[in-house]
Amino acid sequence: MSRFDVVTFVTDYGSAGGFVGALHAVVDALGPPGVRIIDLDHHIPRHDVLLGALRLEGAMAYVRPGIHVAVVDPGVGTTRRAVAVETAERVFIGPDNGVLGFAIAAAGGSTRAVELTAVARPDAASTFDGRDVFAPAAGRLAAGADLGELGPDLDPAGLQVLERPGLRAEGDGRFIAMVVQVDGFGNVQLGAEGAILTRLGTSAILSRQEGRSRLLLPVRSTFGDVAEGEALLLSDSDGRVAISVNRGRADELLDHLRPGDVVVLEPG
Amino acid sequence: MSRFDVVTFVTDYGSAGGFVGALHAVVDALGPPGVRIIDLDHHIPRHDVLLGALRLEGAMAYVRPGIHVAVVDPGVGTTRRAVAVETAERVFIGPDNGVLGFAIAAAGGSTRAVELTAVARPDAASTFDGRDVFAPAAGRLAAGADLGELGPDLDPAGLQVLERPGLRAEGDGRFIAMVVQVDGFGNVQLGAEGAILTRLGTSAILSRQEGRSRLLLPVRSTFGDVAEGEALLLSDSDGRVAISVNRGRADELLDHLRPGDVVVLEPG
Amino acid sequence: MSRFDVVTFVTDYGSAGGFVGALHAVVDALGPPGVRIIDLDHHIPRHDVLLGALRLEGAMAYVRPGIHVAVVDPGVGTTRRAVAVETAERVFIGPDNGVLGFAIAAAGGSTRAVELTAVARPDAASTFDGRDVFAPAAGRLAAGADLGELGPDLDPAGLQVLERPGLRAEGDGRFIAMVVQVDGFGNVQLGAEGAILTRLGTSAILSRQEGRSRLLLPVRSTFGDVAEGEALLLSDSDGRVAISVNRGRADELLDHLRPGDVVVLEPG
Repeated sequence: MSRFDVVTFVTDYGSAGGFVGALHAVVDALGPPGVRIIDLDHHIPRHDVLLGALRLEGAMAYVRPGIHVAVVDPGVGTTRRAVAVETAERVFIGPDNGVLGFAIAAAGGSTRAVELTAVARPDAASTFDGRDVFAPAAGRLAAGADLGELGPDLDPAGLQVLERPGLRAEGDGRFIAMVVQVDGFGNVQLGAEGAILTRLGTSAILSRQEGRSRLLLPVRSTFGDVAEGEALLLSDSDGRVAISVNRGRADELLDHLRPGDVVVLEPG
Repeated sequence: MSRFDVVTFVTDYGSAGGFVGALHAVVDALGPPGVRIIDLDHHIPRHDVLLGALRLEGAMAYVRPGIHVAVVDPGVGTTRRAVAVETAERVFIGPDNGVLGFAIAAAGGSTRAVELTAVARPDAASTFDGRDVFAPAAGRLAAGADLGELGPDLDPAGLQVLERPGLRAEGDGRFIAMVVQVDGFGNVQLGAEGAILTRLGTSAILSRQEGRSRLLLPVRSTFGDVAEGEALLLSDSDGRVAISVNRGRADELLDHLRPGDVVVLEPG
Repeated sequence: MSRFDVVTFVTDYGSAGGFVGALHAVVDALGPPGVRIIDLDHHIPRHDVLLGALRLEGAMAYVRPGIHVAVVDPGVGTTRRAVAVETAERVFIGPDNGVLGFAIAAAGGSTRAVELTAVARPDAASTFDGRDVFAPAAGRLAAGADLGELGPDLDPAGLQVLERPGLRAEGDGRFIAMVVQVDGFGNVQLGAEGAILTRLGTSAILSRQEGRSRLLLPVRSTFGDVAEGEALLLSDSDGRVAISVNRGRADELLDHLRPGDVVVLEPG
């Protein structure tokens, strides 16, 4: 028996193409009866390894300990390694490109890691490691396999780690931050901890690094603290700074805000 | 033990952003082992509380009694109440904005209701009640909690109810109806019970309230009753009047029909 | 007890409209406790029966034996038959329009088939057979019903079969193939077995049948075998020929490649 009866997924596979169905079918086939499969997010923007890493990290706050697979993998079919990384209570599975790193740290750090060289069948495709390497590894671990059956140990210290996007304080009182995601409601999340909002006071000026438009936004707790249609800054449900509009779309501000855009915040 | 081993969801969260995954993770973490989670619909158009209410109501015809969560909630982060409402065989959970109302009535009416004031952790975000209030309430009820553990009783008579979109008979033989949804195949559903088609006879004239184009449509039982590419009126799988085209898209008629549009039907 | 505890779906229902939720609710209501439901793919392009048939066939390589429902059904509401077809280890359920055929053959061929005339309630809609015929049939079989309870036997030899899209060898050394799908990453899959790549050698010239542009593409095993941004031909994870671009989109080649397009390959 395994310690784990839940397998979760974060990928950039999207809805079409049958990719997600294949993951489920493989975990169902190789895992123990009744293993829970949770699709945390299959709509990470294509190849956005950073957002995949942030999503997986965020989920650690509410997902039961289990086997956590993340596949945002622009390097599939190259020499990047496929890995499984154990922490005190969880196992993380994915490509060694940094997508697992923030979550591993949030889970207390790695206690053991292996390279997944003994999972794929010899005739496996080399373009769909989700189905042929990562999901089988998850299914077999859930069914009770030991990490060592999946491949040789590797040094966890050598695993790729991404640079965390953060608020950069300029000397002149300004803060620079990057848009890391825009959700379906138009909320614009910045790569900055919500806690920093206290340093801005009760309102802040938002602008683009290279732009002229400047918006004065109140710093509040939630949408309803401003009138309908008005914008605000808040700490969002991931604990990061977000620009929102009460019952409206904040991504339409400043001539459309998109992931990767750089904005400036300064006390206002 | 709970009476319930199934939790269902209707939301406007859409595919992206990891919202749905968070709901599953929370119900899985707090609910009993093996609790069934059914995603009835996460693609209600943003903030379309009426369609959310109609979808949930429609599902009562085929979903087992369980815990039914609906989150179409433009007022999240304001003072609107979060509620759980018991009926003879089911529990409904969501914001008190009318999204639960039709389903509660379809399930025989409320026997008890509470405001969900004792669910969220003190540090919860105030922008993602699905994850922080509604899913935890569902998980705890499924695990056997009593409704009273989630918050104080409230008077069910005070719950918000929406006006049901209906066919309005004008004196002159014309009927006015609203488009409530367009599905992915282009079928255009009106806010009118299918039974009224008998009052129109074997064909009807369809027009826009403010338009000049008039289409003469046969009233039939199913797509195959007209030739390929031809339009018809029928009672659809929700039991409502729909405009359809056999192997084609009815939403391209009358210069594109969209939810909220008003159309006129008259015997033809 | 049934031999089966897994029900899978392939449909063209898409995300919106609550169709998929209805399928789950019905299988949950009629099937045995804990029956596994796997959504192999609900995003087959509308009415693309051929791609639905190929998707279901492809899944046979990795899905446990179970009850396999496919609903890509432009003829719903006409006289086309609804069927359940047994093979040695599996049962296939869907419209008799060819969507099941390749998978039935991959599963060893039919041993028995019935027409699903005894499944729908008398008051069922005639426009949503997924909910009213196919999912109930799957749920009842999973719960242990015999095939014969669902309707009268029919001769499996009379079931519709589609023509398999294949590479057509012209006399002059050229091969003609059809694009059968484009996935979310822009990989362009042709209706041709990957094994034929060996007949093309180490590179091939790709063109449109009616076009002038010609691309010389290397034949390789995987993305990483060419430089970033370069195109190649490979045998993909379905075992079919695909045109791909390493970390890029192949569907933007040759003035956009789409399903149904015809391309020419010749040794280059």
